[in-house]
Amino acid sequence: MSEVVRVGMLGCGTVGAAVVRLLDEHRTEIELRTGVRVEVVRVAVRDPARDRGVALPAAAFTDDPGEVASDPNVDIVCELIGGTEPALSSLLSAIDHGKPVVTANKELLATRGRELFEAADANGLDVGFEAAVAGGIPLIRPLKHSLAGERIRRLMGIVNGTTNYVLTRMTDDAMSFEDALAEAKRLGFAEADPTADVAAHDAAAKCAILASIAFNSRVTAGDVYREGITAVTRQDIEFARRLGYVVKLLAVAELEGESVAARVHPAMIPAAHPLAAVRGSFNAVFVEGERVGELMFYGRGAGADPTATSVVGDLLGAARHLLHGGRAVGCTCRLTRGISPIEDMESEYYVLLQVEDRPGVLGEIAAVFGREGVSIRHVWQEGLGADAQLVFITHRAREGALRAAVEQLRGLAAVEAVESVLRVEGEE
Amino acid sequence: MSEVVRVGMLGCGTVGAAVVRLLDEHRTEIELRTGVRVEVVRVAVRDPARDRGVALPAAAFTDDPGEVASDPNVDIVCELIGGTEPALSSLLSAIDHGKPVVTANKELLATRGRELFEAADANGLDVGFEAAVAGGIPLIRPLKHSLAGERIRRLMGIVNGTTNYVLTRMTDDAMSFEDALAEAKRLGFAEADPTADVAAHDAAAKCAILASIAFNSRVTAGDVYREGITAVTRQDIEFARRLGYVVKLLAVAELEGESVAARVHPAMIPAAHPLAAVRGSFNAVFVEGERVGELMFYGRGAGADPTATSVVGDLLGAARHLLHGGRAVGCTCRLTRGISPIEDMESEYYVLLQVEDRPGVLGEIAAVFGREGVSIRHVWQEGLGADAQLVFITHRAREGALRAAVEQLRGLAAVEAVESVLRVEGEE
Repeated sequence: MSEVVRVGMLGCGTVGAAVVRLLDEHRTEIELRTGVRVEVVRVAVRDPARDRGVALPAAAFTDDPGEVASDPNVDIVCELIGGTEPALSSLLSAIDHGKPVVTANKELLATRGRELFEAADANGLDVGFEAAVAGGIPLIRPLKHSLAGERIRRLMGIVNGTTNYVLTRMTDDAMSFEDALAEAKRLGFAEADPTADVAAHDAAAKCAILASIAFNSRVTAGDVYREGITAVTRQDIEFARRLGYVVKLLAVAELEGESVAARVHPAMIPAAHPLAAVRGSFNAVFVEGERVGELMFYGRGAGADPTATSVVGDLLGAARHLLHGGRAVGCTCRLTRGISPIEDMESEYYVLLQVEDRPGVLGEIAAVFGREGVSIRHVWQEGLGADAQLVFITHRAREGALRAAVEQLRGLAAVEAVESVLRVEGEE
Repeated sequence: MSEVVRVGMLGCGTVGAAVVRLLDEHRTEIELRTGVRVEVVRVAVRDPARDRGVALPAAAFTDDPGEVASDPNVDIVCELIGGTEPALSSLLSAIDHGKPVVTANKELLATRGRELFEAADANGLDVGFEAAVAGGIPLIRPLKHSLAGERIRRLMGIVNGTTNYVLTRMTDDAMSFEDALAEAKRLGFAEADPTADVAAHDAAAKCAILASIAFNSRVTAGDVYREGITAVTRQDIEFARRLGYVVKLLAVAELEGESVAARVHPAMIPAAHPLAAVRGSFNAVFVEGERVGELMFYGRGAGADPTATSVVGDLLGAARHLLHGGRAVGCTCRLTRGISPIEDMESEYYVLLQVEDRPGVLGEIAAVFGREGVSIRHVWQEGLGADAQLVFITHRAREGALRAAVEQLRGLAAVEAVESVLRVEGEE
């Protein structure tokens, strides 16, 4: 005999409709596995009259999220509106009314997560947010539960499908950034305004959420150093290929001493690295733990159905806790770590310069790198005369030193332009 | 304020000692994240006098597993003895005494799992077994919890590190099976008697456990079709490479209609498949779900420390349930599905024949394939005269038909030997 748990939804767009359908169409499996029957009983949407293609009575719909959050017939509130408001106040109201919540709202979590988690913990209620990072990939639950006893050293992930699609097309099919992005829009992998993705705001929010879990200290989106992919050129990708690398937009979170370093930027990674094989709109997160070594979680980071499986997994967890007691691991941000400035990070670097083609230029440039303590591992010239370029790969260096060197290079008469600077990550 | 949960261990070999150390050395993180303090208070080992390198008083040790299972000062029992007995009766005794259990014992689960799970479910107690499949990789919890709402169509995994190490060395370094295995033994990746690994008994047990979870029906080790890697040659690997494949020992579980097909065998997979990049002693499990699409879980499938992280994750889950109520999803084998015979599976096949080098031979052989309805996609000749070989890649065919064809080929005068038959998996 299954017990019924009633869900109130905030928002019913493509993901919300996929959640309703999944709960309905997989009802048998769900009851068989968990002994729970989950029913969506209330849905708040901007336009209750619009057909959402879900088998719910018209009376289930309202345009007032507060009504769902406070409805005594709703046991769990599932928020899929996105953005900060009215999502946050609705979730806080739901918690205030004793209801556990499930949300896919990375923006909210990465900016106002503290308020949400403090309210939930004060009331002993679950906040499920598996769907907020890496869509359908089970990642939050493994990190918080399976790895509860582990010390995580580093997370490195491809957490934005749009940019990975664009970079994959630029790499595999020699497309320009503009053409690849236009295609991604046509195929629905990029939004009409792709800024949140290509400027890496989306990835930065996810990076903040992952860093907070891994290092037990609140990291917000604003703490994450951020560079998007708009400056990545076909030429960078081609030079990467020749050197045995591929270019990916990486979210990296790691401990530097007791501080958290969190950053999102395009980087070259070795072609043999497991993340290099993550193509198209797929996501993957690579985890390095002190005992467990290297782990990787791979799958679809977006899309209504994959995201809905994560939402439903959280709903079922919360439902089982309502019925049988217990709680998921709550907020684990018990420490207050500093945020390490980007200048303190260390990496190898790829630097592409347009230069005067005459004897002595390499010497002048090398002297600048040398003065800043940046050691050169590999350099070669591309093109001749007016097209002359120098490609540098450095040894491991401090970002601050590299930036100081690049700043001085801009002032050299021999350097016509600093065309690209990319970090090189994932070396053993 | 952390609450104390007391663990009794059965067995304290390399994994057991790693569990004790992890609980001790990561005590701060564990308490901070979960609010639980886990202490190992009793340990049953064959020789209590032996030094295990763990910080436990001599009085904690006993040679009687039954004493630990029934000790009223033990809250959770953690079994790391392996094998069926005394592991099973000790675990049943622990459950009988109201204690949740954690085990890494794949052999026990894949042969006598029903007894264990039925006892635990009857008593409403957790059985954690994350460490039984794929060592340190969080897999069981994501499958049972995160994907509780999903329909899994297929699992395909590299779940044995020893054989993957051997195949990787044969592939990357052109070593023979014998040399690669000898090296694996030297490096501690293979046991002195490597039968359980190379004959795929280990992988078959893991395949049975995964299939049972995925398809909600008990699959035992004996239900899994099994071929090891001893017959894989350097030549097979080289032909695979030329065709764009790599050879891996795969565990595959899928639904054929309402029946479960579960099998472990070497197979060629496309070089671009995510599993192809799983090298050395790493493991990975690829999951195909109806909504979530493709997922992959990658990491260390063996080793004391990675395995200990999974054991500790389970211990913390069980401890939190003891303190706060609730239970993990229990046994989900609620259906009784048939086991699909291997003859009914469909695959592409690679067939290597040693043949007489004369006109007409290909025609005779092709006629045999054709009679059995096996269509040829690719064929070429290797070598001349006494060294002549024919390499065939078939289109998708029924295993039964392929076997019938191969049987007839053995009877042809023109066929001197059927040297290899390998399945080709993972094509889109």
